[in-house]
Amino acid sequence: MTARYPDHLRERIDAHLADLRFPSRTPGTAGLEDAMRYSLLAGGKRIRPVLALATAQAVGLDEDVVLPYATALELIHTYSLIHDDLPAMDDDDLRRGRPTCHVVYGEDVAILAGDALYAEAFRLLLEAGAAEARVPAARTLAAAAALAAASGVDGMVGGQYLDVVGEKASTAGDATTVGRATSDRSGTADGSTGTSTDDARRALRTVHELKTGRLIGASVGGVLHLAGLDDARAEPFRRFAADLGVLFQIVDDILDVTGTDQDLGKRQGSDARHGKRTYVTEYGLGGARDMAAQHHRAATAALTDAAPSGADALLTLTDFIHTRTN
Amino acid sequence: MTARYPDHLRERIDAHLADLRFPSRTPGTAGLEDAMRYSLLAGGKRIRPVLALATAQAVGLDEDVVLPYATALELIHTYSLIHDDLPAMDDDDLRRGRPTCHVVYGEDVAILAGDALYAEAFRLLLEAGAAEARVPAARTLAAAAALAAASGVDGMVGGQYLDVVGEKASTAGDATTVGRATSDRSGTADGSTGTSTDDARRALRTVHELKTGRLIGASVGGVLHLAGLDDARAEPFRRFAADLGVLFQIVDDILDVTGTDQDLGKRQGSDARHGKRTYVTEYGLGGARDMAAQHHRAATAALTDAAPSGADALLTLTDFIHTRTN
Repeated sequence: MTARYPDHLRERIDAHLADLRFPSRTPGTAGLEDAMRYSLLAGGKRIRPVLALATAQAVGLDEDVVLPYATALELIHTYSLIHDDLPAMDDDDLRRGRPTCHVVYGEDVAILAGDALYAEAFRLLLEAGAAEARVPAARTLAAAAALAAASGVDGMVGGQYLDVVGEKASTAGDATTVGRATSDRSGTADGSTGTSTDDARRALRTVHELKTGRLIGASVGGVLHLAGLDDARAEPFRRFAADLGVLFQIVDDILDVTGTDQDLGKRQGSDARHGKRTYVTEYGLGGARDMAAQHHRAATAALTDAAPSGADALLTLTDFIHTRTN
Repeated sequence: MTARYPDHLRERIDAHLADLRFPSRTPGTAGLEDAMRYSLLAGGKRIRPVLALATAQAVGLDEDVVLPYATALELIHTYSLIHDDLPAMDDDDLRRGRPTCHVVYGEDVAILAGDALYAEAFRLLLEAGAAEARVPAARTLAAAAALAAASGVDGMVGGQYLDVVGEKASTAGDATTVGRATSDRSGTADGSTGTSTDDARRALRTVHELKTGRLIGASVGGVLHLAGLDDARAEPFRRFAADLGVLFQIVDDILDVTGTDQDLGKRQGSDARHGKRTYVTEYGLGGARDMAAQHHRAATAALTDAAPSGADALLTLTDFIHTRTN
């Protein structure tokens, strides 16, 4: 059974996103803003911003202080979906039950809508930080730096690159060398030798750690920066975020096999069609489910260390991510 | 005759860019970094970062304090060139005398290389700001916010959107309605009515103000934030930057007609091939040259107000931008 979701936090985010405008001095860019809002307001669970608000609760920070950071997370996530769906990338025509951005607005406008969402994420966050008297500027600077790092080469975009390169290798019938294809300079990701199964599993883990894990990590980590937590207090939160990120991805891979088009809002089986390695192809459905349960336990345990009280919303969210059907 | 260029500043930037690494915990993303560095190290005049360093001199700020900001400007400029050149956008195969990024690395990798350059620009700037004791965090925050604004909807990406939409309208043989096509909600950019020539000229100006002008403005404006200049002292610098931005674009349009492939490092006449309105199509070659001279005089006069002494490098750069042949 699916656990409940912290809906009050999602509603807060949804209301805020619906009111967002990307003001320009010329009405000529209205069409660009339409494309940005089309993808931004397509629904979705808002897991990253909800995670940020739930973390704010756990560390005793006002929700509205964290709202610009939470908003930036969702804008960046939306931009990554738009670019991932492009014909030159995954070439997906359906997302959250609706035609993808490039299907509706054209490929050129979709590229620019993604670019603009990324820029506006930083603009909103940095302008709000400059105007926010309750948070020292140095903390906003640290949070924004973490967000940039999580979405760059050693984060989301790097992960998407590994995904694209790995897919090319497997489409070329070279499935056993994905690990090698994505690390063309120095052998496997950690420089070790091993069986091709070990290599492939390590490569799979790295792709997801970068592509999905880092931004989920930053959804927690950035809030720790805003709160000014010292390393000792931050450490169990970071452990929690790392396990939550892996849990999220394993469940995503399981749902791509077991979910329905309607539940998922995208075509079921899209990983298989793209010849992608997933936790299910590597460990089987049962193995993947066991791993999910393990990471769920580890995340929950880390939360107990991090915030013995006040972590209710984070616990709810962790249960939901484990049991979700979409 | 071409005026000299502040080569010592360009050399400082070039050396810094050549040493830049985009460190990732996995060697698998080395191919992504190759694509980023291919475009970043393709040469170019480095006008934006040189402008930032020259502004630092004029306001008495250490060059190395401004270097991360200057670097971010060039990374963002490079990312915009990679995305502009994509097949779905301008579809250009030659840039700075070499095949464009997507020709060498593929369309998917080129999209990601652009995305990654933007992320790394902010990461470098924000991480350096967090570690820089000589500049209060609030100033770095303001500078980074200005940079994000200059590259978003009301800046570079918005301008590229207007360019793309305008081009579609003119390719469709609907050349006189570019002004209208790019402002589909409320008529012309400023809501007034006018002749179609007025509309088209206003639309042309808006495209360039956003696409090129804002980032050139931020090359000066961000440094004013880093220096903590008050509005009165900043105002003539901002006037200077506005005139310099227009001057830069007019000369660009003139060179697209009068330059050689070799000088330009790209195909001469590319504006005409794309059916683009330019200062030359709107005002003729002589008219465009007169306008360039006007903006050169205005920029130089603003500089005299801004920094009666210490603006040598900015003056040199202004003369160069007026008389350059590439």
